[in-house]
Amino acid sequence: MASRGELIYPEDDRVFLKPYLPVPDRSQDSNVPFVTLTFATSLDSALSLAPGVQTALSGPQSKTMTHYLRCKHDAIMIGVGTAIADDPSLNCRVQGVGGYGGEGLTGQPQPVVVDPHGRWQLTSKTKILNLAREGRGKAPWILTSQTPSVENVKLLEQVGGCYIVLNTPTSTSEKPTMAWLDMLRAVKDRGVESIMIEGGGVIINSLLAADNADLIDSVIVTIAPTWLGQGGVVVSPPRTEGSSLPVARLRQTKWQQLGEDVVLCGVLKA
Amino acid sequence: MASRGELIYPEDDRVFLKPYLPVPDRSQDSNVPFVTLTFATSLDSALSLAPGVQTALSGPQSKTMTHYLRCKHDAIMIGVGTAIADDPSLNCRVQGVGGYGGEGLTGQPQPVVVDPHGRWQLTSKTKILNLAREGRGKAPWILTSQTPSVENVKLLEQVGGCYIVLNTPTSTSEKPTMAWLDMLRAVKDRGVESIMIEGGGVIINSLLAADNADLIDSVIVTIAPTWLGQGGVVVSPPRTEGSSLPVARLRQTKWQQLGEDVVLCGVLKA
Repeated sequence: MASRGELIYPEDDRVFLKPYLPVPDRSQDSNVPFVTLTFATSLDSALSLAPGVQTALSGPQSKTMTHYLRCKHDAIMIGVGTAIADDPSLNCRVQGVGGYGGEGLTGQPQPVVVDPHGRWQLTSKTKILNLAREGRGKAPWILTSQTPSVENVKLLEQVGGCYIVLNTPTSTSEKPTMAWLDMLRAVKDRGVESIMIEGGGVIINSLLAADNADLIDSVIVTIAPTWLGQGGVVVSPPRTEGSSLPVARLRQTKWQQLGEDVVLCGVLKA
Repeated sequence: MASRGELIYPEDDRVFLKPYLPVPDRSQDSNVPFVTLTFATSLDSALSLAPGVQTALSGPQSKTMTHYLRCKHDAIMIGVGTAIADDPSLNCRVQGVGGYGGEGLTGQPQPVVVDPHGRWQLTSKTKILNLAREGRGKAPWILTSQTPSVENVKLLEQVGGCYIVLNTPTSTSEKPTMAWLDMLRAVKDRGVESIMIEGGGVIINSLLAADNADLIDSVIVTIAPTWLGQGGVVVSPPRTEGSSLPVARLRQTKWQQLGEDVVLCGVLKA
């Protein structure tokens, strides 16, 4: 049946997700893609036990769901911290997509890595480059505000990936970040109509902050029934200065048990 | 129909809770009561926006469930921080219990407040004392390690409540806490076969810590689909010194959507 790590996500488990997925014939007059925010936490809202520590949280059914969601989006996005810590595959292993029983790269999402300061050093062993070489995933785009190194450019372009250098306004902060709107416009300009943003903590908290949350069309969160305990990397967006209100609230919620975990779907916009 | 704030919790919503409730004919050879831990948090595991700030989190259905759960336990327990911040009623308003359509105080749980250092100053306006006076709830027991003030004792005993002074071992810490086992034994000695522990943060995190979690028989957590943001009072138990493992994991989980919220039931013991 399934080989090479192919995953099968049951039809029955697809129904509850449908209202929260990008619509293919959505009006395309927006200058940003449809944005789905998705991640998995513990009960104490932790993504991992500590920065850089990969932590098993959700069960096999939830993980398969993530792969199913990937094939429903044109692109998937992570931050450079996750890229360095996890050396992730960032492909879709659902049976029938390209590289997993299907033709070419059909159904494979475009991986996008947000690396404002050029921290990610690629090597010949970087997993995502090897998967692209083997035809089991697309080569990544890397969003940055720095001029990339010649070595990195070479490794990336060999497999068909590229850097997208954004000219961000000069910032007085020591760690300038790239504006969400600029990043989303940049991928939309390259034909991405829908993007799933997966993590890690810095990316998620910044997107959920009041200034950016309007860019989110859909939220799909998996919660595992465990407490990682104090000191984990947590999802908890910054408060708006001077406000004593909750930062964000989901509407049209649907909670679906999947194995021992729950999947929460909702929207942020009124 | 319902009057005086009486609540009706539908039969249909009771079914999923049943496996997690105390069993009336449970073997009584234990020296501690059946312990249910229950509370409501945001998605970022916060009980409130800040210490002492009452925060609306869960919807009306989840709140009614809490009152239903109270009538299924002999006692309910909170910490002194919550008592001071919320001036809570700590009674059960489900239609048919004593004071809400029923006879006497039938179905009303025994409120227990944990106040190790005697911080709670009672007054003639303290809500729980007034409810006891009006026959709409039981007068509280206050667990402490200090000799209570004459005024507090008088106010408490007038309505039928009492202090339970525990002789805790001398501690070198500036803020000695009372041992969970001693507290649970003390209420069991007074006939409490089941107790629901409701909060706040200090109580919950201490009970979920590895040393105490074995005392928990059942966990019922409500999660509201909101992020309160950084700076809230969060549930996240302390890590065990030197351990890099998750602190606790629930088994036999059941996730049930209730309005916009979810209720998670589970057990901690293997």
